[in-house]
Amino acid sequence: MTSSESQASGSVRVESKSASDTAFLDDFATMSTFGATTAGGVERQAATAADADNRRWLSRWLTDRGFTVRYDRVGNMFGLYELVPGAPYVLAGSHLDSQPRGGRFDGAYGVLAAAHAMDRLRRHYTDHPEHARHNLAVINWFNEEGSRFKPSMQGSGVFTGKIALQAALDTTDADGTTVAQALGAWDMLGDNDVFTVGDHHTAGGRAVASYAEIHIEQGRELDKAGVLMGVVPSTWGANKYEISVLGAQSHTGATAIADRQDALYGAAKVVVALRELADEYGDDLHTSCGQLTVYPNSPVVVAREVDMHLDLRSPSDELLEEADAKLTRAFAEIEVAADVKIERRFAHTWKGHTYQPEGVALAEEVIDALGHSHMQVRTRAGHDSTNMKDVVPTVMLFIPSVDGVSHAENEYTHDGDLTAGVDVLTETVARMVEGKL
Amino acid sequence: MTSSESQASGSVRVESKSASDTAFLDDFATMSTFGATTAGGVERQAATAADADNRRWLSRWLTDRGFTVRYDRVGNMFGLYELVPGAPYVLAGSHLDSQPRGGRFDGAYGVLAAAHAMDRLRRHYTDHPEHARHNLAVINWFNEEGSRFKPSMQGSGVFTGKIALQAALDTTDADGTTVAQALGAWDMLGDNDVFTVGDHHTAGGRAVASYAEIHIEQGRELDKAGVLMGVVPSTWGANKYEISVLGAQSHTGATAIADRQDALYGAAKVVVALRELADEYGDDLHTSCGQLTVYPNSPVVVAREVDMHLDLRSPSDELLEEADAKLTRAFAEIEVAADVKIERRFAHTWKGHTYQPEGVALAEEVIDALGHSHMQVRTRAGHDSTNMKDVVPTVMLFIPSVDGVSHAENEYTHDGDLTAGVDVLTETVARMVEGKL
Repeated sequence: MTSSESQASGSVRVESKSASDTAFLDDFATMSTFGATTAGGVERQAATAADADNRRWLSRWLTDRGFTVRYDRVGNMFGLYELVPGAPYVLAGSHLDSQPRGGRFDGAYGVLAAAHAMDRLRRHYTDHPEHARHNLAVINWFNEEGSRFKPSMQGSGVFTGKIALQAALDTTDADGTTVAQALGAWDMLGDNDVFTVGDHHTAGGRAVASYAEIHIEQGRELDKAGVLMGVVPSTWGANKYEISVLGAQSHTGATAIADRQDALYGAAKVVVALRELADEYGDDLHTSCGQLTVYPNSPVVVAREVDMHLDLRSPSDELLEEADAKLTRAFAEIEVAADVKIERRFAHTWKGHTYQPEGVALAEEVIDALGHSHMQVRTRAGHDSTNMKDVVPTVMLFIPSVDGVSHAENEYTHDGDLTAGVDVLTETVARMVEGKL
Repeated sequence: MTSSESQASGSVRVESKSASDTAFLDDFATMSTFGATTAGGVERQAATAADADNRRWLSRWLTDRGFTVRYDRVGNMFGLYELVPGAPYVLAGSHLDSQPRGGRFDGAYGVLAAAHAMDRLRRHYTDHPEHARHNLAVINWFNEEGSRFKPSMQGSGVFTGKIALQAALDTTDADGTTVAQALGAWDMLGDNDVFTVGDHHTAGGRAVASYAEIHIEQGRELDKAGVLMGVVPSTWGANKYEISVLGAQSHTGATAIADRQDALYGAAKVVVALRELADEYGDDLHTSCGQLTVYPNSPVVVAREVDMHLDLRSPSDELLEEADAKLTRAFAEIEVAADVKIERRFAHTWKGHTYQPEGVALAEEVIDALGHSHMQVRTRAGHDSTNMKDVVPTVMLFIPSVDGVSHAENEYTHDGDLTAGVDVLTETVARMVEGKL
């Protein structure tokens, strides 16, 4: 898309397409240096030095352009710009934290796209104040990934009242550092909330009108179909479990097989049973175990305990329930076969839910107006918008991931797709600022 | 057994049975405080502070009784007492290091039993110098367990020329600390060897006449049969492998099952296949995986790599070879089923071997003379005596483990069995000192 096309299609928020694209790509390249890995990815887990460096850079970027930067009580970072005194805010953003050895696009793209979109709109509505009904806020949610501190989507979970603030602050990483300590160390924990959301504790005085987020798809539907934009109509539901498989520690050499209560053998059978469950349902059920820790993890010791994190995801809540029941039966069989106990330490369920159809329609209208292709894509992964859509009108947009690769250093999205996404987000948020959602 | 029985059965090395038993049990209780865990075990991995504390205590104990303490170039610790100038030494001992959260008897019992036995013999032969043909050495082998530094039986491996000295010193733990650094930090690394063994590099001037070791069985054969003493005629053979299962890192939520190259799924199938191999052969094959590490080990990331340590043990070398071939075929099947690669990073084989029949006969004669029950028990686990038997005449004795529990905090052996074992070791070593092996 050229600048003249953009003008022709009705978008007036981008003065010079090529200059704004270059500015975005330059900033994205700078941001990708924070926690950069040699293989082209980033390692920027929540509240680590690399995450803090990136946040400070973004804070300066926003402040330089007239935004006011604030942290709330769980370390969510806001860049505020008031156009209409006292009016509610349109929020747009995503998360800067990454997985260990993750990709440089996941989350970070959405935050920088929101920053550029909001800055374009700041300039536009400064010239045309009469069109603005709402104010502007860029948001960088704390700890979306959940790799250092569990669970994932923690910042937006607290913001939307789904996770208790104190529970989040007390969460520890593998070294015993709490969220409160980790954020406090970087001076990124606010004393007050910034927004008032619904009827729960978050009471910062400002109201939220609506929320928009753009993200790489992390799947291959768009890439396979050769379509630029995905509009998300609904999420997959998910069940997440933390389980402990409990056996008895003994000597691998000396203990007869029949006498073993081998926690790792039990855990391995759980991993295999989990995959067989997915194979049974085809593409309607995703099952995963990505985290498994063995105690004491010595080559000559039969493991006494294995802690594991499991998840089941499906577009169908009924199918999820059915799969959960089958997994429970599989646990009972494994307890007998491996002579172990399986304890569920934590379980978390989120049902499949739809985004507001008005938001989907608005995004599709914008994409049509800008002359791009689009299709609807259900999200299998959770996003901060998954939380936000339950409290305010929310639009979730996807751009393609090459080969669907994500949570990996070779995650990739083409430059042209990145910049087109920023344009779509800008125009979508513009309509939200003008009260069209 | 009372003191008079002991005297009647021909043992003249114990002046007062009840006093010597009490002294042994008191010293064992003291030793069990080094690295003690709340559940009654010890955590005293090789060259940690707890291991060093225990070594210093033993060093004082030996020095107080006239033994000279020396460390060789891989941190093996010797307590030397010369009865016959220039004569070869009878060595007796085991290892003070433990597994993580291991039992307090494994290894430590054998070292203290040897110290008490040698001290009784020091006093006896000081009074009867004309009967001694050899000198006395207590030994505490470095890193038998192999949990902090791999492989296991490292100190005796270097001593017997099976492991290269420099390779052992350069071995690193999980934090990157080398054996040389860890031992050097406690000043427990000698500049020279203490003994000359065979034709390899260990050239400390002194010759080794023979070796004796006593150890808890770590299995349940003696406990089940109600027999006090086990005499070890031979070892099981073992194949040990370190493998890496290699997949591709991706997002658990977004990546379709068919597109996954899940290293943890592949690893779980290896653990299950390994157990099925053991089930196929009954009690003639032990297979184990006690160590398995997942990368990156995040709840929402499909694992890119899993590193595992596997072992196969059998009394039959032919069966081991057959099992190895079956495992190789299983690996090939799993590579296809899970779309992963399996790399063997390291493999180590030790064949089943016999202890000298003369040593077995000597031990059985002593136990009969002392009026105790005995049976032959093949050792499935490796011991330092497994190395020593290949270079000098070696006697390996077992006492019962309650319920066969070992490498666990609830490892237990009755006091009476501990002290009876010391008496048997004392008399056995006495005959070795008198040139009867």
